[in-house]
Amino acid sequence: MRSRERMLAACRGQAVDRPPLWLMRQAGRYLPEYRAVRADHSFWEVVRTPELVEKVTLQPLARFELDAAILFCDILVVLDVLGAEVTYAPGGPRVSPALRDQAGLDALLPVDAEAAFGYVDQAIRRLCARLQPETAVIGFAGAPWTLAAYLVEGGPSRDSAQLKALAYQQPRVFESMMERIADVVAELLLIQLRAGADLVQIFDTWAGHLSPGDYTSLALPYTRRIIERVKSHGAPVILYLRNAAGHLDAAASSGCDVLSVDTSIDLAEARQRLDQSIALQGNLEPALLHAPEARLRAEVERMARAAEGGGYIVNLGQGLVPSSPIDGVARLVDAVRALGSES
Amino acid sequence: MRSRERMLAACRGQAVDRPPLWLMRQAGRYLPEYRAVRADHSFWEVVRTPELVEKVTLQPLARFELDAAILFCDILVVLDVLGAEVTYAPGGPRVSPALRDQAGLDALLPVDAEAAFGYVDQAIRRLCARLQPETAVIGFAGAPWTLAAYLVEGGPSRDSAQLKALAYQQPRVFESMMERIADVVAELLLIQLRAGADLVQIFDTWAGHLSPGDYTSLALPYTRRIIERVKSHGAPVILYLRNAAGHLDAAASSGCDVLSVDTSIDLAEARQRLDQSIALQGNLEPALLHAPEARLRAEVERMARAAEGGGYIVNLGQGLVPSSPIDGVARLVDAVRALGSES
Repeated sequence: MRSRERMLAACRGQAVDRPPLWLMRQAGRYLPEYRAVRADHSFWEVVRTPELVEKVTLQPLARFELDAAILFCDILVVLDVLGAEVTYAPGGPRVSPALRDQAGLDALLPVDAEAAFGYVDQAIRRLCARLQPETAVIGFAGAPWTLAAYLVEGGPSRDSAQLKALAYQQPRVFESMMERIADVVAELLLIQLRAGADLVQIFDTWAGHLSPGDYTSLALPYTRRIIERVKSHGAPVILYLRNAAGHLDAAASSGCDVLSVDTSIDLAEARQRLDQSIALQGNLEPALLHAPEARLRAEVERMARAAEGGGYIVNLGQGLVPSSPIDGVARLVDAVRALGSES
Repeated sequence: MRSRERMLAACRGQAVDRPPLWLMRQAGRYLPEYRAVRADHSFWEVVRTPELVEKVTLQPLARFELDAAILFCDILVVLDVLGAEVTYAPGGPRVSPALRDQAGLDALLPVDAEAAFGYVDQAIRRLCARLQPETAVIGFAGAPWTLAAYLVEGGPSRDSAQLKALAYQQPRVFESMMERIADVVAELLLIQLRAGADLVQIFDTWAGHLSPGDYTSLALPYTRRIIERVKSHGAPVILYLRNAAGHLDAAASSGCDVLSVDTSIDLAEARQRLDQSIALQGNLEPALLHAPEARLRAEVERMARAAEGGGYIVNLGQGLVPSSPIDGVARLVDAVRALGSES
């Protein structure tokens, strides 16, 4: 099978020769060729320059036999077009001013998504021209809860306490903010799909800060709102959650085709609990890239067996980080390819 | 019922007039009287001075009708006596040198726990003299996985990646380190119990960084080793995990009497999945301290109902933080007391 065919089949739970593989943050700072680009260009410059996006998006595919490329971009572009100032600092991105009330909500800018995300449209078109039909092209955006966490907390936080306080104390401000964010996210994903992306992933990195009850009432409705709009296009939608263990069933009810889980839950349990029409993605412990080859290979085989009965896409539980070992990624690629030669 | 009687009965799943209440980090920076003490004394000075420990431990009980006092101390005292340098910085504690290999393991100091933790023994004795038999006195320590995460990562980390890499690459160094830590933790807890503490809690804050499989093989055996030793004393043992949703059954198999869970799992589901002989603690969303009174009260009532069928101790899913509102804590205390007057 071609990579793109394999990815799309896995998303739909159809037969594959082996599970497809791609890695969250597969383009990034663990690659010296990416660091070389960043030595000459700021992060925002790369994101907004389609030629540079194409270049760094393709870098991991030149090294590794991956089944998909994911647009090089950042979830915070949505906050940027809403008028927040987004800067990148060593401890994580900073967003200012922090939105805390109706005045903060009123200060958000109206968004003409087609105009604002023209660079995304162009970058996706370049990637599709280079990669399709052999390799799948993935677009992505942040989930409203995660984007709101950055907007209200002003950066990454341990618990999203300010955002929760806003939701409890000023529910109308919270709801309006979430709807504003959700609508821009939906527009962004539709721009990616119209430009030719084969599928999209929604990242809800901070969903794990919520109790199951609060996830269902404060995060899920806005993710569902996006998926309802995006599904009109027909392409598969992947939903990723970090610390997904407590939110598995709720997240699966979002309308997503694929649920991407971190390491917080056993893959076999996830497969057992969910309807077989929902494909799974992820679950590999990123630190296993540091493990001996036999251990990593055994884990990949275990995951492939655990996921049987529905579609499955191999990926990490969290994205690659600057310290991720390149040879570990190569070992993972070999281990996944070996799954195909065994059958 | 007296508070101490209520706490001990809840730990053992016996009948209570209402669930008991205490709060993780109930003594701390959200209280101006604590900040006043810290204006004159460093954190280590407070921890190592029994008079000051008594003073700050009692501060929240002077304000709120809580059912237990928890020793004011820090989980990192165990790393301190093993020879690591522990300092407190704005981003979290720093531990140096980071242990990464056999040489680091060899550099750990032998520990005479009775001598090293004499200040803990004295502080517990003072607290028991002041509080028993009315109010329960809780001792505590860190779980080996969490302490090892600080020791190997050199401070708080997002994923404990270095510790996992050590476990995968140098399993003998990892095992020896974990056993060394576990044995000091067990000694510390036994010192607390012999000094009169009514029960102890083991904090495994970073257990949520582990996959269920890795939790069972890399963290649980060392926690179990401690509990086996401590149980000889007969006092109840509480085990706390953050991001507990994926580890519920494994953690309950540790031998603990009470499993303290964060917000990652629904309390009713936890109650349903566990043997009724295991009591539950925690689960309240800390941000609800910012919520309107009716919302907080409804949540406390919901939790008390959800926990029915086994022992239950009201607590937060995570500890209080400097920005926790004092009036929110007061509202929580009122809500829990109201549970008793309804029946």
